[in-house]
Amino acid sequence: MTAALPIAGNRFIIVGGASLVGSATAAELLDAGAAEVVLFDNFSMGSEAAIAHLRDHPRLRLVRGDVRYLPDLLRAMEGCDGALLLAAYMTLNMDRDPWGGLDVNIRGVQHALEAVRVNGLKKVVFASSNAVYGYGPNVKGELVETTPFHSVGAPPAAVLYGATKIIGEQLCRDYRRRFGLDYVVLRYSTVYGERQHARAANALYIVETLERVRKGERPQVHGDGSETKHFVYVGDLARANRMAFEAEASDVAVNASGPRPVTTLELVRLVTRLAGSDLEPEFVGDTPGKVRLTSGGAFRIAHEEALRVIGWRPEVEMEEGLRRLIAWLDGNEAKAG
Amino acid sequence: MTAALPIAGNRFIIVGGASLVGSATAAELLDAGAAEVVLFDNFSMGSEAAIAHLRDHPRLRLVRGDVRYLPDLLRAMEGCDGALLLAAYMTLNMDRDPWGGLDVNIRGVQHALEAVRVNGLKKVVFASSNAVYGYGPNVKGELVETTPFHSVGAPPAAVLYGATKIIGEQLCRDYRRRFGLDYVVLRYSTVYGERQHARAANALYIVETLERVRKGERPQVHGDGSETKHFVYVGDLARANRMAFEAEASDVAVNASGPRPVTTLELVRLVTRLAGSDLEPEFVGDTPGKVRLTSGGAFRIAHEEALRVIGWRPEVEMEEGLRRLIAWLDGNEAKAG
Repeated sequence: MTAALPIAGNRFIIVGGASLVGSATAAELLDAGAAEVVLFDNFSMGSEAAIAHLRDHPRLRLVRGDVRYLPDLLRAMEGCDGALLLAAYMTLNMDRDPWGGLDVNIRGVQHALEAVRVNGLKKVVFASSNAVYGYGPNVKGELVETTPFHSVGAPPAAVLYGATKIIGEQLCRDYRRRFGLDYVVLRYSTVYGERQHARAANALYIVETLERVRKGERPQVHGDGSETKHFVYVGDLARANRMAFEAEASDVAVNASGPRPVTTLELVRLVTRLAGSDLEPEFVGDTPGKVRLTSGGAFRIAHEEALRVIGWRPEVEMEEGLRRLIAWLDGNEAKAG
Repeated sequence: MTAALPIAGNRFIIVGGASLVGSATAAELLDAGAAEVVLFDNFSMGSEAAIAHLRDHPRLRLVRGDVRYLPDLLRAMEGCDGALLLAAYMTLNMDRDPWGGLDVNIRGVQHALEAVRVNGLKKVVFASSNAVYGYGPNVKGELVETTPFHSVGAPPAAVLYGATKIIGEQLCRDYRRRFGLDYVVLRYSTVYGERQHARAANALYIVETLERVRKGERPQVHGDGSETKHFVYVGDLARANRMAFEAEASDVAVNASGPRPVTTLELVRLVTRLAGSDLEPEFVGDTPGKVRLTSGGAFRIAHEEALRVIGWRPEVEMEEGLRRLIAWLDGNEAKAG
């Protein structure tokens, strides 16, 4: 038995589909010949804008539904072959509403897996996160798939978010063990790219820097800017999702990160330069009340295991990805103007 | 402002009270002069036997209720000053029913904390577990409060259990931050003692060994018996719970473990000897389908921080605690016979 699920001719549902990663993956699957792609979303965080470019695609179907209601998922998955599970509260929303976050990130995954089982889908790709390695000064060096979860010193919402992703991964393992469900877990690092939203704490720097520079204001760096961030370009992730379905692999969790990490200061300088500005960053203190997930240690999220397991490696360097993001933002402003 | 909550004259609720730890703590609080102790339980796992010795106590009140229903907790906590949160699925039950386990261990804690907030209770003691350090060969050496969570190689139910305890701790932190709730987290190691039940994977060895030896059968050791276990005597834990209420400490998590760890083989030999037998243990292979939480490394769960924070240290050595457990089991058999 192979766990490979080819894209061409098969039907896929993307749970939490009206999103940065969802819309890019829908396009990727449609381009690869998927018979149908169902975007399932309750639009509480997902947006019409994120999927505007896909709306009229003949093989795309939009289903409004909520992962907190099992019947919504049971119906939406009828006839599907593969499911990509994206729906989740990230840290900023977990901080605002931990009840909703735990419901969506845990019960929502249970509901999705149960709907997968009942409808006999062949494979699940579960969007986990490098948050399963935690936060704080002990998160440093090479973060590999066996790195433990560090939580000391992290804000509650960040620990809750990481713990819900650990639970989601284990629920997949549990469905594999009980029901033979094939799955691949991809632990995304921070995503950026066209159709960028402002809900991810780390990705905020990109949008905020750009906004300030465009107004002629100096970009701001909170703290000294020395902390590491490791982004991944959304198009690379869309390809990783596709390849996780296509791979023989099952019952495994691998990192999906960009080519290399950057420091906050490097990132702010890069965005400033790509926006055509030579403004110098302004160093401001840590802002109380703002959830900034700074890690004391320098780290790199290793993606070598993903190459071995699903044949994927990131291709888009940060400079190129940011160029595309900025071009998309400029295009959108032009349309709005 | 002090976070100390004296026992004398105050009213306490023990959520999940009809249990090994619950019944011992109820007795401890009543002895210390509590105005009332409310034992809240749905009796799905708790038992009448566990609280038989307390039933007629004039300051004890038994409330049947379920942590999955917020109104049950809202009503039960009226007039209370302190709450001990024990209700949880442990690994064996999590394995049988992960839906119920995630509901009780996560939503149940949210409900309890919300009922605490609404009723203006002054302090919470949350029963966490050394499961927050995880399982497997990387769990070794001194396990201190900053040790991260290891999950590679552990069965899904064990990881789920540990993750729910991490979440419970963070929910306490979150209520402290938002609403100023005082709390102490105690990370229990494996509990044993009078009114021992058979729901905890590690404690099973004690009861199983005793049962075999009493029938004249050789005690069984799964694997080579070299793996570490670190128990704590239930009376020591009851005292830790009391002292956590009484302490000035708040917003902190500390280990509560016994004087020293043992290996499985040492434990089986000790129980055999205390049962008056000289039978030699029989080494049997790992039993498939049985959840045995064996850790490859030798470890010790450090309890020095508990001394510093709440003034507690374990007092009952394993030999003495086992003696008391065996005497209680023999007494119960005599009564039943």
